Amino acid sequence: MSQLNVHLHQPHINRAAFDQYLPYLQSLVAKKDEKSTHLYLLPELFLAGYPPMDLCFDPDYQNCMQKLLKELDSFFQSLASNHHFLIGALEYSEQGLFNSLLYARGGEHGRFIYRKESLPNYDIFDEKRYYQKGENQRAQIEIEDFKIGLLICEDLWAAIPTNRWSHDLDLIASFNASPYHLSKGQQRIARVQELHQKTNLTPIAYVNSVCAQDELIFDGASFLMENKQIQVLKSFQADGLCYQLNKQDQKKVYADCPAHPRLKSASVTEVLSDLQCEELLQALCFGLQEYAQQCGFQKFLIGLSGGIDSGVVAAIARLSLKDCQHIEAVYLPSQFSSSLSLSLAQTLSQALDIELKHFPIKFLHSTLQREISQYYGEKLEGLSDENIQSRLRGLLLMTRANQTGAMLLNTSNRSELAVGYSTLYGDSIGALSVIGDLYKTEVYQLAHYMNRKYGLIIPQEMIDREPSAELRPDQKDSDSLPNYQELDLLLERIHNCEHSLEKLVELGHQRETVIQVKNLVHKAQFKRQQFCPILKIKGQSFGLGHRMPISSAWNLK
Amino acid sequence: MSQLNVHLHQPHINRAAFDQYLPYLQSLVAKKDEKSTHLYLLPELFLAGYPPMDLCFDPDYQNCMQKLLKELDSFFQSLASNHHFLIGALEYSEQGLFNSLLYARGGEHGRFIYRKESLPNYDIFDEKRYYQKGENQRAQIEIEDFKIGLLICEDLWAAIPTNRWSHDLDLIASFNASPYHLSKGQQRIARVQELHQKTNLTPIAYVNSVCAQDELIFDGASFLMENKQIQVLKSFQADGLCYQLNKQDQKKVYADCPAHPRLKSASVTEVLSDLQCEELLQALCFGLQEYAQQCGFQKFLIGLSGGIDSGVVAAIARLSLKDCQHIEAVYLPSQFSSSLSLSLAQTLSQALDIELKHFPIKFLHSTLQREISQYYGEKLEGLSDENIQSRLRGLLLMTRANQTGAMLLNTSNRSELAVGYSTLYGDSIGALSVIGDLYKTEVYQLAHYMNRKYGLIIPQEMIDREPSAELRPDQKDSDSLPNYQELDLLLERIHNCEHSLEKLVELGHQRETVIQVKNLVHKAQFKRQQFCPILKIKGQSFGLGHRMPISSAWNLK
Repeated sequence: MSQLNVHLHQPHINRAAFDQYLPYLQSLVAKKDEKSTHLYLLPELFLAGYPPMDLCFDPDYQNCMQKLLKELDSFFQSLASNHHFLIGALEYSEQGLFNSLLYARGGEHGRFIYRKESLPNYDIFDEKRYYQKGENQRAQIEIEDFKIGLLICEDLWAAIPTNRWSHDLDLIASFNASPYHLSKGQQRIARVQELHQKTNLTPIAYVNSVCAQDELIFDGASFLMENKQIQVLKSFQADGLCYQLNKQDQKKVYADCPAHPRLKSASVTEVLSDLQCEELLQALCFGLQEYAQQCGFQKFLIGLSGGIDSGVVAAIARLSLKDCQHIEAVYLPSQFSSSLSLSLAQTLSQALDIELKHFPIKFLHSTLQREISQYYGEKLEGLSDENIQSRLRGLLLMTRANQTGAMLLNTSNRSELAVGYSTLYGDSIGALSVIGDLYKTEVYQLAHYMNRKYGLIIPQEMIDREPSAELRPDQKDSDSLPNYQELDLLLERIHNCEHSLEKLVELGHQRETVIQVKNLVHKAQFKRQQFCPILKIKGQSFGLGHRMPISSAWNLK
Repeated sequence: MSQLNVHLHQPHINRAAFDQYLPYLQSLVAKKDEKSTHLYLLPELFLAGYPPMDLCFDPDYQNCMQKLLKELDSFFQSLASNHHFLIGALEYSEQGLFNSLLYARGGEHGRFIYRKESLPNYDIFDEKRYYQKGENQRAQIEIEDFKIGLLICEDLWAAIPTNRWSHDLDLIASFNASPYHLSKGQQRIARVQELHQKTNLTPIAYVNSVCAQDELIFDGASFLMENKQIQVLKSFQADGLCYQLNKQDQKKVYADCPAHPRLKSASVTEVLSDLQCEELLQALCFGLQEYAQQCGFQKFLIGLSGGIDSGVVAAIARLSLKDCQHIEAVYLPSQFSSSLSLSLAQTLSQALDIELKHFPIKFLHSTLQREISQYYGEKLEGLSDENIQSRLRGLLLMTRANQTGAMLLNTSNRSELAVGYSTLYGDSIGALSVIGDLYKTEVYQLAHYMNRKYGLIIPQEMIDREPSAELRPDQKDSDSLPNYQELDLLLERIHNCEHSLEKLVELGHQRETVIQVKNLVHKAQFKRQQFCPILKIKGQSFGLGHRMPISSAWNLK
């Protein structure tokens, strides 16, 4: 046999719905040429979804998984022998739990043939919490005459033991559940190119998942690399391709492929290109929709302030909207809200064709002020009074969300989250943070991009006006914080832990500013602890991958 | 030399205050007999605090640590040579970061001599995220003529390579930052007894930290085991002891000491003994105070409902209160609150000598109802209206906390947290959850115990009345949930992942109840995501050690 049809698949199915797996696999083999040999490649932990987290400890979950494997096994046995599957799956074994590859050939029982060797345990990854390290006798499989080298996700980024492969591989198959961050696609391709070179141009199939779970987005964008050429599948949606692999019997020279340094996303110092903005927009729309659909929401609710953050979140939600879905916006002005805010909220809603409700909180705010002041015999002022406005809005939005069964969208940006410039149980509420991984300066860039692409959907004045929480007269963000251009750069440098105080001063930041900002970031941890999931679009983000103490926080002096 | 003074120390100092370390160590050597030889043992990661979490990646934190080590080094060099230190410390080295032991002798430079070998990466532990695995040439040190075997925390629970020690050890020193859970002290002692036996009665010094960080409590309770006798230090406070170790030159037979199974805490099926209740009470008081003091709070605020949960939290806070501190309680009745609730809140406050404010929310609630109903043209009812009451209380409590600079105490119990029987941004708010790791049935037991110990501080009717959220007429918890006796047992069994559905049915639970409750637990993850830290007093708890997805949550059918 001299040809193998290799099918790269990145299906988009609900990983929690165990009854969807069999029909999906059945659909793959349907109408396939029965004279050819087919190999179907499906992503890392396709049977389970990634990451299953502590669910994998649940005995009922484990039973369901075993039951599923049995069902699939009957299916595999019912097939003709020209069908071959390599599927990422959870392997419960006597030696413990493994992140493995299931191999099945038509007419035979499925069997686990490879266990992931490099278990990432940094950033958002906790694989050493769950899985035993694979110690595989072989890192390749023969299908008919074809020799296929195997890698599961992190295995690709660690030092790759090319010397463990026979040096006449026909294909390298890399199975992934690789969480998205900005420009990660290029980084994956660059890494695979490196391996392609080191293995004397052996073809490589990179298969990635399409789904999202809470903050994590898996973007697909699987690809095939052959003879330095690359064919990329779609991002953020199901896709597949069939590659006709031809047998080549020549022995090749493989070079060592050392480990790749830890990935980083684009920096805030770079201006985002249109391509990057488009990618971000797609990622955020996809992540938002995945969360909503998996949690069963058909309605979105958003509080518009007339500011840029809620404007951009509304635009993203609107762009992501499916036919069956609905979005409602509420503008909740206090006595400190400017008339400009109202008109901008209205203009935005019209441009986006979103229903806008206008619910002034002045009366309720003053009623609360009066009742509280009278009760405690103290005038309510300063931060306490500012927070009341924000929390009253929170209460009204949550009530509306409860009434309509809507998912309340959080509108915080990353700069605010970092320094704690928000009110706990006030503007910090919501089911999901859509732009919480974007610095303020990046929110502006995304707004500009959306306007370039879709016409003026974000009013220009919303972009141009000075940021304000509008919780007291003439309040400006810049009263409390450095300008966002400087703040965002500093915040990113602090988050990435690359530079010490001394180095940051050398780079041009004021010493007092660094100390102030860094201590604000530490102090705001108590707010982030109680925050919703943040769609992750950066290499290093708040959320799962950022683990800091609240009490006994160390401060820079 | 035939005698070594071994000093076990469990100091209680703020780990974040790097300037406290040197004065503390200076205080140790002061007034010590200069003719004797002294060995000071200090807990795991004493220099850093456990766990430093992602702080250890911060270059400024690392610089501070290096600076501290230099300062301490000067101090060590200034001392006479009869002083020896073994101190748990972070070791930044060219091979990476290690959880190590620093050895210093008077007149010499300090040096790292042992690196933790067993890195726990389960439950609340993420050590493989931070530390490299120690690969020590030797697991013992000689101080004068004394041979001392070394273990850092998890090393004690893993298989202990007694064959790597010379079989004439004079002492085994175990350095720990062992998080508290109920009855853990006995489990530690049992394990050390096992090692004591296996090493032919070699004396063992078990040194543990005293501190708390967010949900984690480190209880001290260090101990010395010699010739089957045990001397235990205090729990939840600084303490120390000096042990005169005598040289014994006989060679002994050591047996293998296999790994110990994963620890569990007492089960809800057991009635808590007075000793256990006392231990719990001390743990909660300590954890609460540590959080408050490290975050700089001198005032506590609590919303009393007249129910058992807020009553018990108020009692715990009151019992923990320091002279300089103040506690304020607010009773915030709605139209559905019974007169019994008011009288119970009053009786409790009097018994506890806590100031009680009485702030009816009926007017504000009806104002909100009217405004919202009028605005949306829909009658406000059902869950939306119930939640408004809870969120209005939340808003009023947070406003008061902002006004007075108080720390708002959360009053949720573990049963509620598990099934999501609470209002997000309502009764779920607060800086710290005091009893969130206690099931409802355990809250009652603690109430009974406190009454036995302190007289009737929790009114008997508060214990006897049927639990209700009082958010609609005649509402009872039992309308929505199984009775707490059954629920709690089931919740614990579900949490511990010991039994499948089939097994739980065999154990006497209704199939429908198991499915209902298990799915409630999964579904409530979105509320727990936005919850404050929960003082951990169980082996398996919500919080850091419980990692579940929100979206794409798998459900039992």
